[in-house]
Amino acid sequence: MEISGMEIIGGGIVAPRGFKTAGVYCGIKRKRNDLALIVSDVDAVAAGVFTTNIVQAPCIVSNQTHLQDGLARAIVVNSGNANACNGEQGWADAVAMVNHAADALGLPHRRVLSASTGVIGTKLPIEKIAAGIPSAVAKLHGETCDDAAQAIMTTDTFLKQVAVEFPLEGGTTARLGAIAKGSGMIAPNMATMLGFLTTDIAIEQPVLQEMLRRVCWYTFNSVTVDGDTSTNDMVLALANGLAGNDPIDSLESPDARAFEKALYSVCLYLAKEIARDGEGATKLVEVTVQNVAVPDRLRQTYAASGLEMTPEQRAGFPRSVAKTIANSPLVKTALFGNDPNWGRILAATGRAGIAFDPERVEIALAGTTVYRNGMPTGFNGYVVSEAMKAKEVQILVDFHQPSGETATVWTCDFSYDYVKINAEYHT
Amino acid sequence: MEISGMEIIGGGIVAPRGFKTAGVYCGIKRKRNDLALIVSDVDAVAAGVFTTNIVQAPCIVSNQTHLQDGLARAIVVNSGNANACNGEQGWADAVAMVNHAADALGLPHRRVLSASTGVIGTKLPIEKIAAGIPSAVAKLHGETCDDAAQAIMTTDTFLKQVAVEFPLEGGTTARLGAIAKGSGMIAPNMATMLGFLTTDIAIEQPVLQEMLRRVCWYTFNSVTVDGDTSTNDMVLALANGLAGNDPIDSLESPDARAFEKALYSVCLYLAKEIARDGEGATKLVEVTVQNVAVPDRLRQTYAASGLEMTPEQRAGFPRSVAKTIANSPLVKTALFGNDPNWGRILAATGRAGIAFDPERVEIALAGTTVYRNGMPTGFNGYVVSEAMKAKEVQILVDFHQPSGETATVWTCDFSYDYVKINAEYHT
Repeated sequence: MEISGMEIIGGGIVAPRGFKTAGVYCGIKRKRNDLALIVSDVDAVAAGVFTTNIVQAPCIVSNQTHLQDGLARAIVVNSGNANACNGEQGWADAVAMVNHAADALGLPHRRVLSASTGVIGTKLPIEKIAAGIPSAVAKLHGETCDDAAQAIMTTDTFLKQVAVEFPLEGGTTARLGAIAKGSGMIAPNMATMLGFLTTDIAIEQPVLQEMLRRVCWYTFNSVTVDGDTSTNDMVLALANGLAGNDPIDSLESPDARAFEKALYSVCLYLAKEIARDGEGATKLVEVTVQNVAVPDRLRQTYAASGLEMTPEQRAGFPRSVAKTIANSPLVKTALFGNDPNWGRILAATGRAGIAFDPERVEIALAGTTVYRNGMPTGFNGYVVSEAMKAKEVQILVDFHQPSGETATVWTCDFSYDYVKINAEYHT
Repeated sequence: MEISGMEIIGGGIVAPRGFKTAGVYCGIKRKRNDLALIVSDVDAVAAGVFTTNIVQAPCIVSNQTHLQDGLARAIVVNSGNANACNGEQGWADAVAMVNHAADALGLPHRRVLSASTGVIGTKLPIEKIAAGIPSAVAKLHGETCDDAAQAIMTTDTFLKQVAVEFPLEGGTTARLGAIAKGSGMIAPNMATMLGFLTTDIAIEQPVLQEMLRRVCWYTFNSVTVDGDTSTNDMVLALANGLAGNDPIDSLESPDARAFEKALYSVCLYLAKEIARDGEGATKLVEVTVQNVAVPDRLRQTYAASGLEMTPEQRAGFPRSVAKTIANSPLVKTALFGNDPNWGRILAATGRAGIAFDPERVEIALAGTTVYRNGMPTGFNGYVVSEAMKAKEVQILVDFHQPSGETATVWTCDFSYDYVKINAEYHT
């Protein structure tokens, strides 16, 4: 299997040289692995992208502090308890978790990053984690990462991992691996998205940080299950340099472009897996909004000030429309019912706050144009409904504005099981 | 029964002097009334508030044109077909509907306003409406408005009407009546909210328009079922002056305040009825967010420019937080499941884009404080869950910021029936 022309290789996060991992059961969850370690043999350049929620778990703040020198050696992760909203005790437990892992690995505390996911407002069972860490250290290996990928899951229904290999200038090759978990719930909490990336490429920290930021914008941050942002969301990347390439020191070199392509492909692959595995989802839905111009007034303001908009600022206009469509409960229930309901898509488009001409906008659903020239086309509802039964359904909205921007977001449909999963738990 | 200290009287929109109405069956829907007329004996001052969706049905545009001189005599409404997204034909049919009603009533065309709700993208059966109008005219009466309130319903499960009487300066009394329909769906479309108000008070048009605008902000526009704004939403008010009071010519006179209080009470009553009758709803949910300060930078910008923020601009900050909570599928499914899930409320609060201190924010659910000092209180989950089984449940979020603003929005929970109603229709 290939992604973006790159062969998927085995091993996930231990495919790159010099990484080991382990996933063990320490007793937080009922039966499944709930504690993972990811360790590099040598100091790695490290970068992170974190939740924008105003309420942030201690692990988010701890990682931002530890990333100040741009280096890390290990990540310790638990599932089953998010250690968010636990007051002073929560901060102490988050520090203790990092320190236990660092001590067991013989590392300075500041070289260890951490993540927690699961229930919030319940004290972290730090003694179970402390007891589990030595057994995880003892099991560190470079075979596969199935045990670790499983240990970070909450209500995900399948493992999410991938790795690729790609050539660099001068004949060397580099590898990039990743694991992720998606929007499963363990009440009383919210969906938390975690992603951990490892690579043996040599790269300077600011370049890695900027690449990770912009790649996340187009991938993990373009996925939505229900529009809810968790207190614990994060993506971390470790680059240990063991590929032996000349360190990447700009965003524009051929090696930089090769790496960013791999980074984008891996993150996109996992982001789509997360959407596909959204709670109660029966299908993956891709919403693309295209040819959306930057509003005149904003463009003129930027031009007058001599500043340039970033690609993400420009693509933010179609993306906000795509997110409005992707988060609309009316659109999502219609997708569940295989109902070619262009009216709901159009209505969501119209309330997204971006101006357009309703007579020129065009909507295609599952490959068929269903709305054009201000009215529905004479499409065959039965045929489109049948096409919507596929595992992947595309919604395409075209504003037909000159010099327009395009953005894509991924989501899933809204089923009885979504209500069931999220209503039937009682605290 | 009273609202805001005013006795509810019978008659709805025909309670005020000089109004007649009729609701008849003209054949658009299967069995139920689907065509309504509301007529004033004399020219009435008229005002309207319309959808902000960029896609707007012809009736929205037609009404805005007819309101340019601020006078109207009649409103013609059909349900079962929204006449939106029907291209040129839709515009012609909307004009024809108004003209048929005006001709049958012997009125200038520009004195007639119109509204349509129901499926979109399907040609309006104008010949059925044309045939139905004379029978509606023949049935105009001043007894009750049950027939008209029924004729504007789509999937509403109960009639929504109310009227009040209130004293004015100089010993006269005025009456205000209203009917509304809420967020029922007839696929392929979206929820449309319609509200029609009649009053016999004498008031100048700009005063009525401004009062209606701001009252709608706090009432109809503070209701959300699923965050979707229709192409056809509107609220229209007719004031025919037959109460004989000195015409209200400012927002500040005692009569103006009495009328605005009545307007607010009537609109609030109907807005809550709409939320209570949201699709699949099992309860009415009131979300209040209080003590939210205007961001410093914005306050300083206004101060520096010598401008003042409107009350709605200031209350917009807590309202945007309240709407984020009220639209969160995670919060709404927890409400359906009677799960005291403060974590989802906190997470929604944290992603609303308004800064606050998570250690100071306080959350109360169904009368019990569940979150304070950065962590859950030791509340009894069983007791709160039992309290959540009531027909009305309150969520209260307090930012505890000095000089803060407060806002309330109304919504409903998210049940299996919501998915059923919205997924099981096939175009």
